[in-house]
Amino acid sequence: MSEVMTTGVFASDAGPSIPTNLSRDDYCSADIYAKELEKVFYRQWLAVGHISLVPAAGDYYVKQVGPESMIIAKDKEGRIRAYFNVCRHRGYRMLDDHAQGCTDGFVCPYHHWTYDLNGKLRTVPGTRDGQDFPFAEFPLHEAHCTVKHGFIFVWLGKDVPPTLDEALAHWDNDALIRKFEPEKLKLAHREIYTIDANWKAMMENDLECYHCSHGGHVSLAIACNFQGFYADKQTGQHFPLREGMVTFSMDGQRVCKKPLGKAVDGDSAGFLLWPFFCGPVFFVDHAVSLELTPMGVDKCQFICEWYVEETAVESVDYDVEKLIQVFHITNVEDQAFGERNYRGIQSSRFVPGALHPRREDGIIAAYDLYRGMMAAD
Amino acid sequence: MSEVMTTGVFASDAGPSIPTNLSRDDYCSADIYAKELEKVFYRQWLAVGHISLVPAAGDYYVKQVGPESMIIAKDKEGRIRAYFNVCRHRGYRMLDDHAQGCTDGFVCPYHHWTYDLNGKLRTVPGTRDGQDFPFAEFPLHEAHCTVKHGFIFVWLGKDVPPTLDEALAHWDNDALIRKFEPEKLKLAHREIYTIDANWKAMMENDLECYHCSHGGHVSLAIACNFQGFYADKQTGQHFPLREGMVTFSMDGQRVCKKPLGKAVDGDSAGFLLWPFFCGPVFFVDHAVSLELTPMGVDKCQFICEWYVEETAVESVDYDVEKLIQVFHITNVEDQAFGERNYRGIQSSRFVPGALHPRREDGIIAAYDLYRGMMAAD
Amino acid sequence: MSEVMTTGVFASDAGPSIPTNLSRDDYCSADIYAKELEKVFYRQWLAVGHISLVPAAGDYYVKQVGPESMIIAKDKEGRIRAYFNVCRHRGYRMLDDHAQGCTDGFVCPYHHWTYDLNGKLRTVPGTRDGQDFPFAEFPLHEAHCTVKHGFIFVWLGKDVPPTLDEALAHWDNDALIRKFEPEKLKLAHREIYTIDANWKAMMENDLECYHCSHGGHVSLAIACNFQGFYADKQTGQHFPLREGMVTFSMDGQRVCKKPLGKAVDGDSAGFLLWPFFCGPVFFVDHAVSLELTPMGVDKCQFICEWYVEETAVESVDYDVEKLIQVFHITNVEDQAFGERNYRGIQSSRFVPGALHPRREDGIIAAYDLYRGMMAAD
Repeated sequence: MSEVMTTGVFASDAGPSIPTNLSRDDYCSADIYAKELEKVFYRQWLAVGHISLVPAAGDYYVKQVGPESMIIAKDKEGRIRAYFNVCRHRGYRMLDDHAQGCTDGFVCPYHHWTYDLNGKLRTVPGTRDGQDFPFAEFPLHEAHCTVKHGFIFVWLGKDVPPTLDEALAHWDNDALIRKFEPEKLKLAHREIYTIDANWKAMMENDLECYHCSHGGHVSLAIACNFQGFYADKQTGQHFPLREGMVTFSMDGQRVCKKPLGKAVDGDSAGFLLWPFFCGPVFFVDHAVSLELTPMGVDKCQFICEWYVEETAVESVDYDVEKLIQVFHITNVEDQAFGERNYRGIQSSRFVPGALHPRREDGIIAAYDLYRGMMAAD
Repeated sequence: MSEVMTTGVFASDAGPSIPTNLSRDDYCSADIYAKELEKVFYRQWLAVGHISLVPAAGDYYVKQVGPESMIIAKDKEGRIRAYFNVCRHRGYRMLDDHAQGCTDGFVCPYHHWTYDLNGKLRTVPGTRDGQDFPFAEFPLHEAHCTVKHGFIFVWLGKDVPPTLDEALAHWDNDALIRKFEPEKLKLAHREIYTIDANWKAMMENDLECYHCSHGGHVSLAIACNFQGFYADKQTGQHFPLREGMVTFSMDGQRVCKKPLGKAVDGDSAGFLLWPFFCGPVFFVDHAVSLELTPMGVDKCQFICEWYVEETAVESVDYDVEKLIQVFHITNVEDQAFGERNYRGIQSSRFVPGALHPRREDGIIAAYDLYRGMMAAD
Repeated sequence: MSEVMTTGVFASDAGPSIPTNLSRDDYCSADIYAKELEKVFYRQWLAVGHISLVPAAGDYYVKQVGPESMIIAKDKEGRIRAYFNVCRHRGYRMLDDHAQGCTDGFVCPYHHWTYDLNGKLRTVPGTRDGQDFPFAEFPLHEAHCTVKHGFIFVWLGKDVPPTLDEALAHWDNDALIRKFEPEKLKLAHREIYTIDANWKAMMENDLECYHCSHGGHVSLAIACNFQGFYADKQTGQHFPLREGMVTFSMDGQRVCKKPLGKAVDGDSAGFLLWPFFCGPVFFVDHAVSLELTPMGVDKCQFICEWYVEETAVESVDYDVEKLIQVFHITNVEDQAFGERNYRGIQSSRFVPGALHPRREDGIIAAYDLYRGMMAAD
């Protein structure tokens, strides 16, 4: 057999071309990783949390989005803004990782340059505006930011992005999602997984449930009909529940007493973006938001957030351990899958392998998109 | 004096050229390391264990050979095969590190693609052979594999290799080695040393015993006549024992009651390969197999395996602690030598240094071979 | 606003150019770091300790100076010499980190090549001078070495350096420093800080006390008038004490009973070099020597040594904890500042920021020097 293959499509003598995953260099090369950041990561809408995290003017939180530390804040006019967590003086990381609070502005703790909620440089110790330089030249760097169904998305590059609706045009389930009243949520728990694998090994894993059977995910197999994962793109029922189950939980029963909006038992919907896999999914009693971002050619980060109805009370309406059980166990299993897949990919003999046209169609679609983005100017 | 030298040979104004070790870049450059993998590592027969590890059809074990995880297995026809531990689907690392057992074939735990003992793709969940792609296009990647005097060697590159006998033509001691009946062995112990040094710093250390005197290896100095190390290339007595010693042990007495084959007290032989130093050495009551492989420009791995006669019983015929004592202590000392040598080599001022023409002739010969391999197409 | 700026000077539409720090690549690129080593680090006089560390012929100590391990030794003629800690045989790191003692010469512990105190190769086991190679071709590599006001400086590159007095021509305080009798000191304590930041983030921090106010350095703010830091370049009073304080300590009182030379309460002087920030500062009762060196593109080392009058006795005349308190706390705080600044600099959006022309003039001057050195042949 031939060892030399075309990346992405395997041209067999026996017949038509076979869709494949990528070449070893595509996963392991620092140069290709740098290009991916520029062409893909900085040109995609990325989920960063829910509007309930910044209910009032001045509310803010810090979130790591791949290599960038971002400040998400609500300004005085009620707009949600996204700033790079970098002082314009000498580049200090201004706010702590995971910081959150309510403020009139941001103060760099190094030399006490201050910025208002619109990112404008307000004061500089030891000089006045225009005395040594015009303050207007040094606002906080800002990212594009938008909200859909209560979830906040950022676009970190400098290009003018398409609207999020345009980016999500492959879904057509807005009416179904509105039934969950997705603006009325409360964060119940967050887990951050740091994974020793190229992000695309995790993206592939996220985009198929071909691996879910045969014991790959025992708890997930109980909870949902994984053969239907992502399959029905018109309904957006990414995690179709099994017959008789009311929500996505270990025993199929509710993990929070309060339903989301007008949702009923067995409802399931969501809207997800890729190649950097992210976005929310909704069930009758909780929602889950997923965020896959890159941390280097051989490292990535996966954040999973669990939300409940905004008035639900911990220990009364829900128990965190039960709430997160199925997804958390699945995430831990997936981390092991991704890390071990990446170890195999690093072999000198690794070449693109055949993708299953029906069970891995999500990966095929994602790589079509990825290749287009990588080829763009 | 001149600071600028030709790599490998120091051209002195004072007279003829002096053999040297290599330049700083040769030890520290990632580009040169990548070239070494291609030109040297993937083009050398490498020791990976003994036939007693796979006595029956279906027996297999997993071994790390430099950057590659390899499956060594016996097929139904009784041939020993070497497969890269990489599923042809999406590149998953199929078997665990150090796994061993007996099987009818190999199942990737990720999506349950299965391979038979000949490496042929047998089943793929959700599709039939030819339905989406021809299974014959996706066998396990296989390495060349051969056996000599009971020890298994692999050649990881795709070239057609010379025979192992051709590669070992510098030894002429087959008759002596047969006296040990080297096929009739049993693994008694294995140690794996992970070393923070470029592999060539360890290769140099392995190929001379100039450093053994003056307290460099106290225990080794007791055990053997290190001034004769590797010296008598015609007899292959790499570790010539001192007068009155019967085997390679701390007190010179046997460390296993059962002799190997027809060997008698004081016998010593072996066959070793380089630049990647590997192969077995034999004494009257035990054998030792050595494997030096690279793990990165600044990291390498040394595996040492101790073998006894195949019917010997632990605690009855031999004691592991006594069996491994001299070699293990020496290996630990050599790890420290290699790591500290590599620290010095990283100085900006390091230049190739003079090799001793009689006490370091093994290094000189190895670098002659190495340079030829690096210059080859 | 424009995101694209000229490195080092920000050309605003609004008026004259603004001095800035450097671009992201200047801090994060391995290529630029390699060039900095060659053009700046190996072409600067670097402080390595005090003459009291090698009082007699044969005295030596080992010190890490950036990527180089150096042996500082006094030869038979009473000259202080600096040798690279690298055996000329195969490059072994000869002496342990932090080793010190008194010797007739240096013996490599690997193969027992020996060198005399002048760095000449003296003996090689198994060969005689000229038998296989001339020993004169293999002396220890030596660095330029000089002494000023009792402190030892090395120049690690091969160029002929300017004299240290030429390099220090920006100071004019020799008479003031002589008052401290700086030759008559004794090392009381040394701290080594390993910092996860590019060395220039630390250099910037060392060259301004703009960050000292507003709680940046609480203990330092007590001790000194940091607004005058480095300001009075003619007097060399780098750390001008506050009114009423007699020395640089937490309560402003002496931390050693014995004064340095003829110094009186409130005296303060020193001489410092950069871009690699180093050199001593003197107060009435103690001196402090600082050494900033690079350990990689994203790592640097800061060494702080505290000296007292040569006859002072620990626990009688001084207490180490009180002696080191202000500087040590400040160093730990500065390490945190440098590391966090470097995290911000790694953002894709980081661009050079405006430097304060009066509060950060030290940085501006250092980068003028740095740019000249980087542009030189």
